[in-house]
Amino acid sequence: MTITGATRLYAIVGDPIVQVRSPEVFTERFRAAGVDAVFLPVHVPASRFEAVFAALLEVRNLDGLLVTIPFKTRALPFARHVGSMARAVDAINALRREASGAWVGDMFDGLGFVRAVERKGYGVRGRHAALFGAGGAGSAIAHALAEAGVAAIDLIEPDAAKAHTLVSRLRQLFPDQAFAIVDRVPPGSTLVVNASPVGMEAHDGLPGELGALDPGTVIGDVVISKAPTPIVRFALDRGYGHVTGSDMHEGQVDALFDFFLHRVTSASASASS
Amino acid sequence: MTITGATRLYAIVGDPIVQVRSPEVFTERFRAAGVDAVFLPVHVPASRFEAVFAALLEVRNLDGLLVTIPFKTRALPFARHVGSMARAVDAINALRREASGAWVGDMFDGLGFVRAVERKGYGVRGRHAALFGAGGAGSAIAHALAEAGVAAIDLIEPDAAKAHTLVSRLRQLFPDQAFAIVDRVPPGSTLVVNASPVGMEAHDGLPGELGALDPGTVIGDVVISKAPTPIVRFALDRGYGHVTGSDMHEGQVDALFDFFLHRVTSASASASS
Repeated sequence: MTITGATRLYAIVGDPIVQVRSPEVFTERFRAAGVDAVFLPVHVPASRFEAVFAALLEVRNLDGLLVTIPFKTRALPFARHVGSMARAVDAINALRREASGAWVGDMFDGLGFVRAVERKGYGVRGRHAALFGAGGAGSAIAHALAEAGVAAIDLIEPDAAKAHTLVSRLRQLFPDQAFAIVDRVPPGSTLVVNASPVGMEAHDGLPGELGALDPGTVIGDVVISKAPTPIVRFALDRGYGHVTGSDMHEGQVDALFDFFLHRVTSASASASS
Repeated sequence: MTITGATRLYAIVGDPIVQVRSPEVFTERFRAAGVDAVFLPVHVPASRFEAVFAALLEVRNLDGLLVTIPFKTRALPFARHVGSMARAVDAINALRREASGAWVGDMFDGLGFVRAVERKGYGVRGRHAALFGAGGAGSAIAHALAEAGVAAIDLIEPDAAKAHTLVSRLRQLFPDQAFAIVDRVPPGSTLVVNASPVGMEAHDGLPGELGALDPGTVIGDVVISKAPTPIVRFALDRGYGHVTGSDMHEGQVDALFDFFLHRVTSASASASS
């Protein structure tokens, strides 16, 4: 790879930044695709986000941005247009510059999970999903699953207010699918997803009781870990299909790459492609 | 080269930007030196320079900047401290972040020429210089030559006001050296430098009459060109030492690389090293 005056720029903005993996992954994708672009880590201090981010959007040879912790909500107002997935979760994790010069934003966090399930050869449409966690990740995954056509989502979330907010928003957006708040994985669930932080710590167990599951059930986890997380271990031991946090990350890279290269118009378009 | 979340950033800011060569040159230097850093082209529209540049300086993993046309004067106020070379010419072309977090700026344009002369094995100290042009490049080269110990500089510049400003500033800063305004290269000159734009156009001739020169004379040009410029062609035909615009560019890269890696404190320190 050579960087010249004509090389186009993409970047991920976060605080901290050293832990991000996008620069390596996307720079390699650009190289493999013959695109003269590099992907950079940009460390913007949280206290100065608005001023610095606004200025970055004025850099003329910058074509796309990812936004990570703690800026996904604060970045939303900087996009002139946002996709339906971003509106649904009130946050974005990606922006690109349109030919008009306007910045368009969208949220791909949930889509990454759906893509990962599909890449492993499991369908999503028609499944009965049980989802642990209604935070940022859970909310994004719920919307992406609904958009991808699951029949139902049962939400397991200890924060009742958070759970109600998410379920009522989902009911409004997807009136033909079923959404409920539950306290354990219901029998008949065929897709179980952990979008809670349980599993990040070494001593963590399962995020909740899983009960008896159908043989064709797929189990997914957002937690990225070298060793299998407890819920992935559970799936491996019992022969269920499984999708790891790393699978989800890779699934998102595909969707984002398509978005950056203008192969899709939004996260939703990408979801239904 | 791999870009990760821990990779440090350097950039050149200009409008336009596609023509710059620093990203390629410095990224390769970093790689060769085992420094985990990349050098980027950053296109900031001239109308938005102040706001965007201020924000760039807040990016925490950005360690150094070059500034090119048309921003060398407008960048000066953004440096908390500037070297003597920058103060002398009221412009900077490089900034780096100190351990304290403060940005320090300096002007290396003239130093690049001095380094190039030295790299070709010609001394600078004690020479009688004749210099065409008292613009940005001429002014920077005059100061760098004076700092490097030439005995005298005779300035050939059609704009009388410009010539007087530069000569009086040089006399103030370097009271022990001789500075004069002349209308042709005086006999006895041993270093002739073209810092005027003459030579950029295909039909250009010499920037002025060169007269009879000593055999040991060195002739330099700031104009970058694939084919020899008229004044370089003159030197080649008559067997004088010569330094091209490309040599000067390379000479500056050395000095800037030392500055970015904190091997020197300023352009002046670099000049006398």
